[in-house]
Amino acid sequence: MVTETGDWRVIANAIKTLAIRGAPLIGVAAALAVAMEAARLNDRNGSRERIEQTIAGLRATRPTAVNLFNALDRMATRLGFEPDAGLSRALEQEAVTILAEDRARCDRIAAAGLALIPQNARILTICNTGYLATAGIGTALGVIYRAHDAGLIREVFVPETRPLLQGARLTMWELSLAGIPARLLVDGAIPAKLRGGMDLAIIGADRIASNGDTANKTGSMGLALACRRFGVPLYVAAPMTTFDLQCQNGSKIPIEERPGDEVTLINGRRLAPVGVPVFNPAFDVVEADLISGFITDEGLKSPPFHFSDADGDAHAT
Amino acid sequence: MVTETGDWRVIANAIKTLAIRGAPLIGVAAALAVAMEAARLNDRNGSRERIEQTIAGLRATRPTAVNLFNALDRMATRLGFEPDAGLSRALEQEAVTILAEDRARCDRIAAAGLALIPQNARILTICNTGYLATAGIGTALGVIYRAHDAGLIREVFVPETRPLLQGARLTMWELSLAGIPARLLVDGAIPAKLRGGMDLAIIGADRIASNGDTANKTGSMGLALACRRFGVPLYVAAPMTTFDLQCQNGSKIPIEERPGDEVTLINGRRLAPVGVPVFNPAFDVVEADLISGFITDEGLKSPPFHFSDADGDAHAT
Repeated sequence: MVTETGDWRVIANAIKTLAIRGAPLIGVAAALAVAMEAARLNDRNGSRERIEQTIAGLRATRPTAVNLFNALDRMATRLGFEPDAGLSRALEQEAVTILAEDRARCDRIAAAGLALIPQNARILTICNTGYLATAGIGTALGVIYRAHDAGLIREVFVPETRPLLQGARLTMWELSLAGIPARLLVDGAIPAKLRGGMDLAIIGADRIASNGDTANKTGSMGLALACRRFGVPLYVAAPMTTFDLQCQNGSKIPIEERPGDEVTLINGRRLAPVGVPVFNPAFDVVEADLISGFITDEGLKSPPFHFSDADGDAHAT
Repeated sequence: MVTETGDWRVIANAIKTLAIRGAPLIGVAAALAVAMEAARLNDRNGSRERIEQTIAGLRATRPTAVNLFNALDRMATRLGFEPDAGLSRALEQEAVTILAEDRARCDRIAAAGLALIPQNARILTICNTGYLATAGIGTALGVIYRAHDAGLIREVFVPETRPLLQGARLTMWELSLAGIPARLLVDGAIPAKLRGGMDLAIIGADRIASNGDTANKTGSMGLALACRRFGVPLYVAAPMTTFDLQCQNGSKIPIEERPGDEVTLINGRRLAPVGVPVFNPAFDVVEADLISGFITDEGLKSPPFHFSDADGDAHAT
């Protein structure tokens, strides 16, 4: 299904409902939505206020992925410095730059990660962190694509990633398109799979605190605990735009709770009795002590992270 | 849907397809199926061989839950010792005894577990271990029923238990019938829930090795690792018929792998691309060091377990 729109609210809603998801991609999509609204307003009187409202509306879509705020901060900064004439052109330029940078960051992450992949590697990765989650080849999945190109992959193991099944629906699809051998499992089967042997696990991130605590899709902390138990190295692959150096640790990361229907309904079919209460956090925090290293577009890094590590994109609110 | 049958193969198939499930209940159901077949044969010539075949057929339904083998061993022993005349009556008696014993064991488990439940308790339990899994009030869920009667329960937290959703479908239904406050979560959200505070976790078991390693529904090991991480006591509630003292540790427990369709289809709806390979173990092993104690019909126990702990039902093949 392809949808075309000229309305930023349609993009905002797509981010809210996870039709557009993946921390890097929602940053890029939000920047493009701001530029689209600016183009529609075409520098006429009152544009600036309307664009500010657009930025505010996009900020309110989802709370956890910091890339969204980093991208919108850049758009707001550009908005603040540009004169009225040529405003829409400048914002388009900024958004397109954000997109191009994200694509390039993906390539650099993949290159940095390649060194960690052994011959004949069995790799576990959760959720979706590829083409469908970034403007480029992806973060964790980008490393896997690059390693596959280098002939290093034996098999990739993909937890389905409940409730929204990004692993089953999106990652299994991406890997099968790429011809990479992949096997699906339920999230609860991760320990059994790791006990049987696994070379490494790589996950993405939605926000990384300065101490290395990492918010990522629900299921990631269970994965990390199983990695520790069975001696499997766990890497986080993310662009520097995912680091939030103002945030000291995971307890400070706002975790989005989503509607219970995501858990109790699949394709409109009810999986549980009507009206049951549900606990449905979209993310979990993986504490830094469980993470072997961070694969970034600036190379491999370890916490604590400082402002000198980031290239000016660190969220500073 | 209520089905009536006089054919033991229908019962065998119900066990295979998990229409009848729960380690204690499949033992009871298998014993009753043997008795039903004996009653149909009505002590006529050749009954003994046909009953032996029935027992063999029921043994082949599922490999992990040891209660099945313990119950069928008892039926086979009775078959071996009874004369031809009155054989069917004797086997009926044995099966009804197994059923009554299971019910009584549930009550004793619940009584033994009560001492572990604090005031205002928040308890996590996975899969289904109640009326729908035993001949009585259940094992882990039986403890919760008893604690609720004593006014001790604040809230019960129930992971949905993928792939077959026994937590969402069965346990949430049982708890809502009983008027016990309960909240559903995806299996991957267990660590986030435990980090937020939990008084204890109680799970059932399908086979317990002599060193305390415990096979239970997929998802249980992840639950156990999260309990350890966040300091939540984890108890296993099971009748002595679930102990397999011939089995030295978890690596010796046969783990059933089930069809991939259980993961890729829900109610006939496809959740993943067609034909993807799936890893679908029905059970995982929770290693003994992660378990705080065992709640049995003979009281609280700790490993290593010896034959003197079991009352003659220990699986001895």
